[in-house]
Amino acid sequence: MLIVMKSGASQNEIDRVIEVIEILGFRGHAMPGEGRTAIGITGNKGAIDPAHFENLPGVADAIRVTKPYKLISKDLRPERSVVKVGNATIGGDELAIIAGPCAVENPKQVLAVAESVAASGSKFFRGGAFKPRTSPYAFQGMGEDGLKILAEARDQFGLNIVTEAMDEQGVDLVVKYGDCIQIGARNMQNFSLLKYAGQTRKPVLLKRGLSATLDEFLLAAEYIMSEGNYDVILCERGIRTFADHARNTMDLSIVPAVHRMTHLPIIVDPSHGTGHNYLVNPLARAGVAVGADGLLIEVHPCPEEALCDGAQALTPNQYLELVTQVNRLHALMVEEDARTPVVTEIAV
Amino acid sequence: MLIVMKSGASQNEIDRVIEVIEILGFRGHAMPGEGRTAIGITGNKGAIDPAHFENLPGVADAIRVTKPYKLISKDLRPERSVVKVGNATIGGDELAIIAGPCAVENPKQVLAVAESVAASGSKFFRGGAFKPRTSPYAFQGMGEDGLKILAEARDQFGLNIVTEAMDEQGVDLVVKYGDCIQIGARNMQNFSLLKYAGQTRKPVLLKRGLSATLDEFLLAAEYIMSEGNYDVILCERGIRTFADHARNTMDLSIVPAVHRMTHLPIIVDPSHGTGHNYLVNPLARAGVAVGADGLLIEVHPCPEEALCDGAQALTPNQYLELVTQVNRLHALMVEEDARTPVVTEIAV
Amino acid sequence: MLIVMKSGASQNEIDRVIEVIEILGFRGHAMPGEGRTAIGITGNKGAIDPAHFENLPGVADAIRVTKPYKLISKDLRPERSVVKVGNATIGGDELAIIAGPCAVENPKQVLAVAESVAASGSKFFRGGAFKPRTSPYAFQGMGEDGLKILAEARDQFGLNIVTEAMDEQGVDLVVKYGDCIQIGARNMQNFSLLKYAGQTRKPVLLKRGLSATLDEFLLAAEYIMSEGNYDVILCERGIRTFADHARNTMDLSIVPAVHRMTHLPIIVDPSHGTGHNYLVNPLARAGVAVGADGLLIEVHPCPEEALCDGAQALTPNQYLELVTQVNRLHALMVEEDARTPVVTEIAV
Amino acid sequence: MLIVMKSGASQNEIDRVIEVIEILGFRGHAMPGEGRTAIGITGNKGAIDPAHFENLPGVADAIRVTKPYKLISKDLRPERSVVKVGNATIGGDELAIIAGPCAVENPKQVLAVAESVAASGSKFFRGGAFKPRTSPYAFQGMGEDGLKILAEARDQFGLNIVTEAMDEQGVDLVVKYGDCIQIGARNMQNFSLLKYAGQTRKPVLLKRGLSATLDEFLLAAEYIMSEGNYDVILCERGIRTFADHARNTMDLSIVPAVHRMTHLPIIVDPSHGTGHNYLVNPLARAGVAVGADGLLIEVHPCPEEALCDGAQALTPNQYLELVTQVNRLHALMVEEDARTPVVTEIAV
Repeated sequence: MLIVMKSGASQNEIDRVIEVIEILGFRGHAMPGEGRTAIGITGNKGAIDPAHFENLPGVADAIRVTKPYKLISKDLRPERSVVKVGNATIGGDELAIIAGPCAVENPKQVLAVAESVAASGSKFFRGGAFKPRTSPYAFQGMGEDGLKILAEARDQFGLNIVTEAMDEQGVDLVVKYGDCIQIGARNMQNFSLLKYAGQTRKPVLLKRGLSATLDEFLLAAEYIMSEGNYDVILCERGIRTFADHARNTMDLSIVPAVHRMTHLPIIVDPSHGTGHNYLVNPLARAGVAVGADGLLIEVHPCPEEALCDGAQALTPNQYLELVTQVNRLHALMVEEDARTPVVTEIAV
Repeated sequence: MLIVMKSGASQNEIDRVIEVIEILGFRGHAMPGEGRTAIGITGNKGAIDPAHFENLPGVADAIRVTKPYKLISKDLRPERSVVKVGNATIGGDELAIIAGPCAVENPKQVLAVAESVAASGSKFFRGGAFKPRTSPYAFQGMGEDGLKILAEARDQFGLNIVTEAMDEQGVDLVVKYGDCIQIGARNMQNFSLLKYAGQTRKPVLLKRGLSATLDEFLLAAEYIMSEGNYDVILCERGIRTFADHARNTMDLSIVPAVHRMTHLPIIVDPSHGTGHNYLVNPLARAGVAVGADGLLIEVHPCPEEALCDGAQALTPNQYLELVTQVNRLHALMVEEDARTPVVTEIAV
Repeated sequence: MLIVMKSGASQNEIDRVIEVIEILGFRGHAMPGEGRTAIGITGNKGAIDPAHFENLPGVADAIRVTKPYKLISKDLRPERSVVKVGNATIGGDELAIIAGPCAVENPKQVLAVAESVAASGSKFFRGGAFKPRTSPYAFQGMGEDGLKILAEARDQFGLNIVTEAMDEQGVDLVVKYGDCIQIGARNMQNFSLLKYAGQTRKPVLLKRGLSATLDEFLLAAEYIMSEGNYDVILCERGIRTFADHARNTMDLSIVPAVHRMTHLPIIVDPSHGTGHNYLVNPLARAGVAVGADGLLIEVHPCPEEALCDGAQALTPNQYLELVTQVNRLHALMVEEDARTPVVTEIAV
Repeated sequence: MLIVMKSGASQNEIDRVIEVIEILGFRGHAMPGEGRTAIGITGNKGAIDPAHFENLPGVADAIRVTKPYKLISKDLRPERSVVKVGNATIGGDELAIIAGPCAVENPKQVLAVAESVAASGSKFFRGGAFKPRTSPYAFQGMGEDGLKILAEARDQFGLNIVTEAMDEQGVDLVVKYGDCIQIGARNMQNFSLLKYAGQTRKPVLLKRGLSATLDEFLLAAEYIMSEGNYDVILCERGIRTFADHARNTMDLSIVPAVHRMTHLPIIVDPSHGTGHNYLVNPLARAGVAVGADGLLIEVHPCPEEALCDGAQALTPNQYLELVTQVNRLHALMVEEDARTPVVTEIAV
């Protein structure tokens, strides 16, 4: 934290700022400049709220210097984390593809899609048993019965189950039946839920909130980790903007930004990120090209009859085509990165 | 729902759309036009997801016609709701002012502010015992001890207590100690929490999410009401935009929009809505002028030492001045509306 | 500009930063701290692009300290500017109301509205002869013929004419026929046009761009003023956000922010700012309450037959009602500010 | 255009809507439904402004059906356009890479970069002689002298010159010295400039405005084409959102959306789109993977001394590495599309 005083600030005003710093338990260091005085703060363990200073007489600005991260940061762990999910991993050299229907509707639908997903070589299956729907009158998911169907898909096809929990009871059930707790965009700052998930020992897939900055996204992960659960996978799923040709705007630059600042893996979800079938394949390719550790893809045997989000679901055939394509693309990306580590490193 | 077919759509494509409509349990009505055919849907009780149709061959667009509202709408209840909170009301002729510190820090701070709030003539006191903080390392609130301090403020000064709950345990405690359950912006689409609050019989103050559309905001209220709790007060507290001169952008046009579509009261929060002390007074005035039923104002005896959001808190003196001003302003607004009901009605 | 070095930055890296500062013609001042070194820059007349430093080895961050303003700032002129427009002023104690149709359509329409505007006591008349329309196939305005009709409205009713110019020829014509050059939101960063308008000696009404930050808005005014034309009036007309209940989101907090940083007057435009008839009156009230120096209001004798933006135009009767109301409101605001100058000053 | 009446609308209200439709010169077709009446409009050549109807008594909603496009649309020209720029093309099978410094600073800098660009195999060189800078006190470009330096780069290295014009004089000069007129994001809705560029016979590179929707972007292209210049190349360069880890948010889903609706080529600009050196390579890869027809890349021999936008410029070495990588990636994408045309076609 750096306090910049106005050019005509009096010595009394400077002294008052330092006094407030000391009341807060830190140390203030006045650095007089040619035009104005700046005051540095030390002794703080994390970030200090600029609010303490902004309205004091004579203060021009209060600027944060230190970021309030601890456990997610590369300072703590320079190499990338590889997160174990069931019998597979996310974050290593292989592209992780998590696929399945938006909502679990019935055993037939789930098992049909699971068969396609297993056939494609993917190791992760998704499907919602608890659905966060904008309207209370929309289909809310099958609940525990849905989780049992997902468990059956795992037993039959050896897939690892990623599924959403919306509250503590949901977390308990996902821990019981599934392999990875998904926390949805709308709950990204449901801090009670984050802490509860942080007390389990199942990996957590944390989706970015619709209007979350990078800082807020990373601090949501920090909430989970601060409870002792270090197995967090981030997921970009589109943000809310004025653009209206897609349901959300995929913010792919967050992938290299996350990799630069943290050791956590990050995947992208072009299904929710675009909301339109014809955009899923191109944005999945873009996600792999930008360096994502995996993809989240919605697949439905008959998208136009889906109870939820049908417009964005791929048919099983479209899905198989996509997997083939992104795997070839990912192989090329790995090759490129192997070929040219040096200049890229400097670029960072 | 209206399906608009492409200009060259074949009869087969039209038939397939009608077939899908019937599979979903509704009736389709093809209306051939000069250039293209449109297909209307009846038999649905609420909105239908356009996703079912958008990717069918020959379909140009799927347009929603009916809004998925029931309990919040003026169709159900044409006159405005007046919500009882403790021994006072929100939504009637009087301007409701809810004031207090961001966070409960200690009895001395709370009681000092409560005294000012009571002296100003306001009937509602706010203060957070559970704080949703972006970082897990920031002050998280005093919990139940904080609620006890708030209850003491009620006992001493006759103020009604409005305070936030972040989870089910929190709701139980607010029901025990407070008069109104606040649900914060970050939890506006925490549907489990909305349902749980809907099962209590305490009024709920629902804050708009940072990126919530009007539809999403109203459907969040609908979640609470669909559980049987009809005492909902909405609160505009600023949305997230690119603008960086204030912490959030207050979207005041939502006040008349809410009054046009629903019978619910809506208040505005210029403290969180702006994040800066010098903006609170002008935006409070603007909120009253635009027609809000009340204000939420942060007050702190010593803003620069506040443990949370100090930059936006008013001093007790600034607060007393504001109350005097907005009451005079509100009186003028009531007069204006009494003077000219006819043309305004037409304007709507 | 302040360069913050990484915690492990070497002396060589610090020396290189200082060398780059000197290459740019400034002086660098290294200030070693406990954890890391910061480097201040002096000798610069305006802002320095952080880009020069961000990618140098060892640099953690480059933070702007000085704002790049000169002519708009209160440092230059502490008291508020009052801008003369024809035979009236904007920015003083009186509320300036600029009203008229969106587009000039024919003499009959213009003179009918002008009569209402003059009858209301307003001193300014608006109407577009050059219309910036999203589609090339929409009505583009009457051009010079439209300006002649506006000039006739001035002659008949003594109103001062505010009208938009979209290019240099347009500026020349507005200088010939009108009293104030309006620069529209879409041209707010058309720097060639800003400079050209800055070379005239007619006042300029500068509308905020749809996605302009406060900084960008003020620097656009600075462009006009840097050419020697100091008569600039700012106008907030709504920004582009995700919110969809109004055409744009009015960002009223920019009014006190502009008054805090600059000496320029600022008015608000609730017609374009909302796009809906029923929102114009409440947002006009809010604009006056927040402290705007004036309003821009669209009026049309028959809004549903307007060639442009009819949905937001008031009828003459609605307009007269609005003027009466906002004048009473403005009188109250002036009274309040006269009553309590001291505490408000501290709040700033 | 479809007018949806309220459920209780009277016959008089319906008749009034039809009357207004006829006053506007079109025909209205009332279609009574079970719950409410809808009224279709025919006889219009383009889109009708919903504003004409929204405030008529009894009207619930006015919904656009026809898009106001003509010349950009695939209805007019089903196959993709290939635009000739100097002696090369954009929009065909080859990836077009346009590279060079942000601003022309001096002959040495320009020729050094041009040599690298030519060596990489790219056929297009960019560099600004007229710079749209947020502040009037920032470097504004070298003007005609800068254009002469660019022309020299073409003569020496056989590169085609793409450079920005900000006004009519600028367009005339770019026509004289360059091969392609760039219109910048800030001028995307400077309709006078669009029309003027539309009267030349040089290709136009049109950058998306910071807050432009897809519709507005396409209609800006339509402005140019409606003047007879059909050689338009679109460019996505990031939009303005709340996200703050990059200077802008690249909206890559617009690439397939543009290809779906229009026959025009579209390229992406990861340099302006991100504003940070370390993000340029990953977002360039993503742009190619999503299907862009080309890239716009900033290269500077010494980014930290650049007079403009240095933080985002690549060094010549980074640039050469990028070209090699994206060419391999583009080759794979072409292969994929050749391999699997059928399912992808259905997906659209």
